[in-house]
Amino acid sequence: MSGSTFGTIFKITTWGESHGAAIGVVVDGCPAGLALCEADIQKFLDRRKPGSSQFATQRKEADSVELLSGIFEGTTTGTPISMLIRNTSQRSADYSEIASYYRPGHADYTFDQKYGFRDYRGGGRSSGRETIGRVAAGAIAAKLLSELGITVTAYTESIGDIQISMEHFDLEEARRNQTGMPDHAASERAEVYLKECMQKLDSAGGVVVCRVQNLPAGIGEPVFDKLDANLAKAIMSIGAVKAFAVGDGTNVSTANGSTNNDCFRINEGKIIKETNHAGGILGGISDGSEVILRAYFKPTPSIFQKQETVNRSGENISIQIKGRHDPIIVPRAVVVVEAMTALTVLDLLLQNMTSQVEKIKQFYTL
Amino acid sequence: MSGSTFGTIFKITTWGESHGAAIGVVVDGCPAGLALCEADIQKFLDRRKPGSSQFATQRKEADSVELLSGIFEGTTTGTPISMLIRNTSQRSADYSEIASYYRPGHADYTFDQKYGFRDYRGGGRSSGRETIGRVAAGAIAAKLLSELGITVTAYTESIGDIQISMEHFDLEEARRNQTGMPDHAASERAEVYLKECMQKLDSAGGVVVCRVQNLPAGIGEPVFDKLDANLAKAIMSIGAVKAFAVGDGTNVSTANGSTNNDCFRINEGKIIKETNHAGGILGGISDGSEVILRAYFKPTPSIFQKQETVNRSGENISIQIKGRHDPIIVPRAVVVVEAMTALTVLDLLLQNMTSQVEKIKQFYTL
Amino acid sequence: MSGSTFGTIFKITTWGESHGAAIGVVVDGCPAGLALCEADIQKFLDRRKPGSSQFATQRKEADSVELLSGIFEGTTTGTPISMLIRNTSQRSADYSEIASYYRPGHADYTFDQKYGFRDYRGGGRSSGRETIGRVAAGAIAAKLLSELGITVTAYTESIGDIQISMEHFDLEEARRNQTGMPDHAASERAEVYLKECMQKLDSAGGVVVCRVQNLPAGIGEPVFDKLDANLAKAIMSIGAVKAFAVGDGTNVSTANGSTNNDCFRINEGKIIKETNHAGGILGGISDGSEVILRAYFKPTPSIFQKQETVNRSGENISIQIKGRHDPIIVPRAVVVVEAMTALTVLDLLLQNMTSQVEKIKQFYTL
Amino acid sequence: MSGSTFGTIFKITTWGESHGAAIGVVVDGCPAGLALCEADIQKFLDRRKPGSSQFATQRKEADSVELLSGIFEGTTTGTPISMLIRNTSQRSADYSEIASYYRPGHADYTFDQKYGFRDYRGGGRSSGRETIGRVAAGAIAAKLLSELGITVTAYTESIGDIQISMEHFDLEEARRNQTGMPDHAASERAEVYLKECMQKLDSAGGVVVCRVQNLPAGIGEPVFDKLDANLAKAIMSIGAVKAFAVGDGTNVSTANGSTNNDCFRINEGKIIKETNHAGGILGGISDGSEVILRAYFKPTPSIFQKQETVNRSGENISIQIKGRHDPIIVPRAVVVVEAMTALTVLDLLLQNMTSQVEKIKQFYTL
Repeated sequence: MSGSTFGTIFKITTWGESHGAAIGVVVDGCPAGLALCEADIQKFLDRRKPGSSQFATQRKEADSVELLSGIFEGTTTGTPISMLIRNTSQRSADYSEIASYYRPGHADYTFDQKYGFRDYRGGGRSSGRETIGRVAAGAIAAKLLSELGITVTAYTESIGDIQISMEHFDLEEARRNQTGMPDHAASERAEVYLKECMQKLDSAGGVVVCRVQNLPAGIGEPVFDKLDANLAKAIMSIGAVKAFAVGDGTNVSTANGSTNNDCFRINEGKIIKETNHAGGILGGISDGSEVILRAYFKPTPSIFQKQETVNRSGENISIQIKGRHDPIIVPRAVVVVEAMTALTVLDLLLQNMTSQVEKIKQFYTL
Repeated sequence: MSGSTFGTIFKITTWGESHGAAIGVVVDGCPAGLALCEADIQKFLDRRKPGSSQFATQRKEADSVELLSGIFEGTTTGTPISMLIRNTSQRSADYSEIASYYRPGHADYTFDQKYGFRDYRGGGRSSGRETIGRVAAGAIAAKLLSELGITVTAYTESIGDIQISMEHFDLEEARRNQTGMPDHAASERAEVYLKECMQKLDSAGGVVVCRVQNLPAGIGEPVFDKLDANLAKAIMSIGAVKAFAVGDGTNVSTANGSTNNDCFRINEGKIIKETNHAGGILGGISDGSEVILRAYFKPTPSIFQKQETVNRSGENISIQIKGRHDPIIVPRAVVVVEAMTALTVLDLLLQNMTSQVEKIKQFYTL
Repeated sequence: MSGSTFGTIFKITTWGESHGAAIGVVVDGCPAGLALCEADIQKFLDRRKPGSSQFATQRKEADSVELLSGIFEGTTTGTPISMLIRNTSQRSADYSEIASYYRPGHADYTFDQKYGFRDYRGGGRSSGRETIGRVAAGAIAAKLLSELGITVTAYTESIGDIQISMEHFDLEEARRNQTGMPDHAASERAEVYLKECMQKLDSAGGVVVCRVQNLPAGIGEPVFDKLDANLAKAIMSIGAVKAFAVGDGTNVSTANGSTNNDCFRINEGKIIKETNHAGGILGGISDGSEVILRAYFKPTPSIFQKQETVNRSGENISIQIKGRHDPIIVPRAVVVVEAMTALTVLDLLLQNMTSQVEKIKQFYTL
Repeated sequence: MSGSTFGTIFKITTWGESHGAAIGVVVDGCPAGLALCEADIQKFLDRRKPGSSQFATQRKEADSVELLSGIFEGTTTGTPISMLIRNTSQRSADYSEIASYYRPGHADYTFDQKYGFRDYRGGGRSSGRETIGRVAAGAIAAKLLSELGITVTAYTESIGDIQISMEHFDLEEARRNQTGMPDHAASERAEVYLKECMQKLDSAGGVVVCRVQNLPAGIGEPVFDKLDANLAKAIMSIGAVKAFAVGDGTNVSTANGSTNNDCFRINEGKIIKETNHAGGILGGISDGSEVILRAYFKPTPSIFQKQETVNRSGENISIQIKGRHDPIIVPRAVVVVEAMTALTVLDLLLQNMTSQVEKIKQFYTL
């Protein structure tokens, strides 16, 4: 059934395949009165654009967004915003061979099993290009959040075994280099590692961190639409993510309550937490601290080494994948994580507006 | 807004607080014709029942389920199934003090921020008792899955630093002991560790694994309702879970494609994967291998040590929590993970029935 | 699949059959801070209670509501509100015969076709008792609306051919008499007509009007969740309703634009409409005028005359229905229409809170 | 919030305004394996195209559909189908004056109230052009239904007081003439009436009937997603519809049970109803008879007579609307009613597939 819609109040529906005519998204439920132009969207799309790095597929795509509806005189009208990005560099020839077999680590086999057949060109709907719609929509969510003073920031924390050091944290650096790491030295080490991977015809994984700042306390809808639950879904729905964590994440399983609990304190008249092991979420609701999450990405499955697999006729075969593929998806995925986080946080922020009778009364008597 | 409903076709709505009159769940969308009685549900509830272990709260609750609708002559009718469990051991006195301050690691502060006030008795809706509804509904989902030959099995993999060894894997053991670990020796070591924690007035965390066997390939709805995305939401919505992983999980970030890819092979005429780093999911769709997921639980926040916090008047204070609290939530959470997994898998299994025109035609000409 | 949930933000899930243990509803998404007690609910339930009129089934049910969750110290907490009403007068014996055949005008045949079998006692889930959950939930919606100054009022407009006259409109009368008609003379004529129907072992239909006053302009979410579209679904989902209309309703098809258009005028500095052919809705959005809708009810299908039908063995047979049945459903349905209208209006009122960026900013800086 | 999505399994999201760059729809949840090309869609769009009749706006639009995704080698892939129709004839000049005042009978005022401002060109999102997305999506639904042997057919039953006679019923005629009436003589009388209306600078309304044939019994999901409830929402969400009815509709309110009940009979071994007052729906579930519904359309509000209204500065003014407007919307709305009916029926047909455990088991062992 339909699975291409995300969100409840601020709702997006993405569409499009790697080698179809275009990729796009419809954003429904965007409030009226937000100044919005194509440049706001393009800025985000450019961050995930292929061809801009030696570690990204050499496929060249302009990925220019076209805003088709929902805007009048530079402002959102409250009606659905449709955005379209044409596919311009579809070398289907590269993919024709793929039709006959199942690439390891890809969704070829599972799509065939689910739908009876598949669009085999470039992964079709399971291609990374599917995330274009998410990023375009996320750009709008991020802009609306920023109007409320809330910022969402993602970056690469590690590639393979190479971790950034928070001592040298420099977000500008992350936006400039080819790894997305906010640490110049770590980024250089990661580049060396990635070149080694490429020489071995291999690929690498990594971790993306995302932080949400200035989110008010109270966001998240127990017991199923908790902030962390909805973020988990949002992030795990990105292809290649195999694990998700908030705050101290997997480490909590070996911690004790005495060290894992964050004590509350009064600071300049406001309630704060002294530490933030919880990653800004208690009982599925934001607690006013920074929200911190992590997405763990697997290595790109398209490697150029010889691999064993089966073909559609049910025979064991050896294959060697050709084409244009990223040796690592992480740097380009940073903005996707940011987009999905912004979409989730905004949707729950809007959902929270109906939580108290008093506030509803005030709203309707403004 | 409403956040107490989970699922799309097989949909559950839970309700109830720790110290209200009752806890319950409505299961809507259960197909007609499933043999079902209270014993089917009670079996699951008994696995999360408090008071059965030295590591669980000593609060005694019968947690007896009452089936109120949707069953006729021992069989589901296709109409909503309402289940109710009375709260019988509500010692509100234990909790009266809590009203005035915010317990570290709990949802007291965030509920106050969201709703303007809260039911402070025993955590209200953020209490672990909220999971009773999930388990009761999960029991039905598991029974329906078993009719289709699909099994869902969870157990404790680690408590603190103590890990089970797969060499000594014994599921019967897990159902028998007080840790939920399917390894007798590891369980004994974990018991020693937990007693130490209790002596230090501290608490511990751990990891629960869940495995789904015999799930056909093709289950999961790209691109947002992917099998792993929906499982992530299901599991992260359980209180105290701070990280979620499928297959090799966080380890994929340091792996290479050449080792992380699972090769397909023909085995007795069937397509299988030689390895299962992917945890049975490719492109968000089940691949016919075992689905493997992990939930990382934080230590119980209710510890008996002195802690610093603030009260509702905005003053820094020291507190010492009293009452009946689990030093570890993991053993009782095993069945909750199992329940949420069963609910998610079943819902997507039903969603998948409309994926091919040919199969719809066959269905309506049966 | 699941069809027992109504609403998006203020969401209700009803459950229960005519002859099961109980009937109930879970209201999820009710804002925190509403004073609420069982008497608030009971007041509504008493208006649909059987046994209070010679034109209603003589089945005696207390229909006493039990509030099980979501309330703390007399106030809603923002968590789900579960309400339960025990069935106490289940004379299943009356219904045993029904198991073998399909009653004309009832859902016996369609339930069998859909689910493979049915709970044949008293119609099971298709019984009018199913509306108890709607009314209990509607009582909460109506109370919350009244806090915002919005009132929802339904009454009987016609029974058979007998219409009320708006000149003699008296709402108190409608709440007092056995027809629900706000016109004493019309009500007396209707009583005579209904007695005739009963003597002929026949049944009658009628029309219920519902009016919403003081609803602000701007409520309704184009293009599918329009105010009139959602009201239509709400009202048509009530058993026995075969037509729905807003404003001038069916008459618009023979009108001309020049007479059907409502002109806007300034009245004491406010924009009003001089007439209200539109029934308070333009483009699916409330226009600040009174919202007016009509529900057309069919005659009760359970009549005591001999009828032709078929049995489950596929034979033509003659039947004569026994038991306790309303000769007309309309008077008891008035409060059901009111409840469904209140639920729909409230849900869209809450949905509207996110329609403008400026108002969201104001909300979060209150 | 978002209101532009319709359906649960077969889900459509429409977007676009009268005078934006384009209008479109995303269809998500269309099963894989349906042969589909642009001609299948165009055929439906051509039926609602403006400029083809003297009774329709003289605005010329090609309304050519572009299929952007979800199709591979002429077949649906199971992924979202995006369709786009460019607006080519946007004479915004015609509309500039409208910005300053509120047209009677239009959504100008309510959009302003809801969103703070509006796209005043041609009604923006409240324009009849919004239905293009519905019709494009409905074409796919209708094609899929026809694969299952189910047909959906709408036509004009009346215009003003002129009714068709079923004795002269001729569907070919309805598709050929300018009224959509399947009765040549009635259509000629309606043309005379419409010309009179135009001479008086006035407009007219009418009734559209829609019939669904060969729908199996069992379709519809009690208690809220009943077949008639969902159809009511679908049809009432079409601009200008003010009433909705199934079967005998409003007439049931004056009928008696003895005449309104449809008796079941055995006919050639099958269970049928002797009459069809119910319009093919009992208890919200299809009964195997023809489903019959009616949509009552108001006269076009854009009339060329002088009208009283207010402007945005809050002054009473007189206006005279200019531009290109249909004197009646009914003939072009026929295909919109057909589309919305097809979408609703198909969605519920897919939802019904999970109603019985036995059938699910059979499905997964096919």
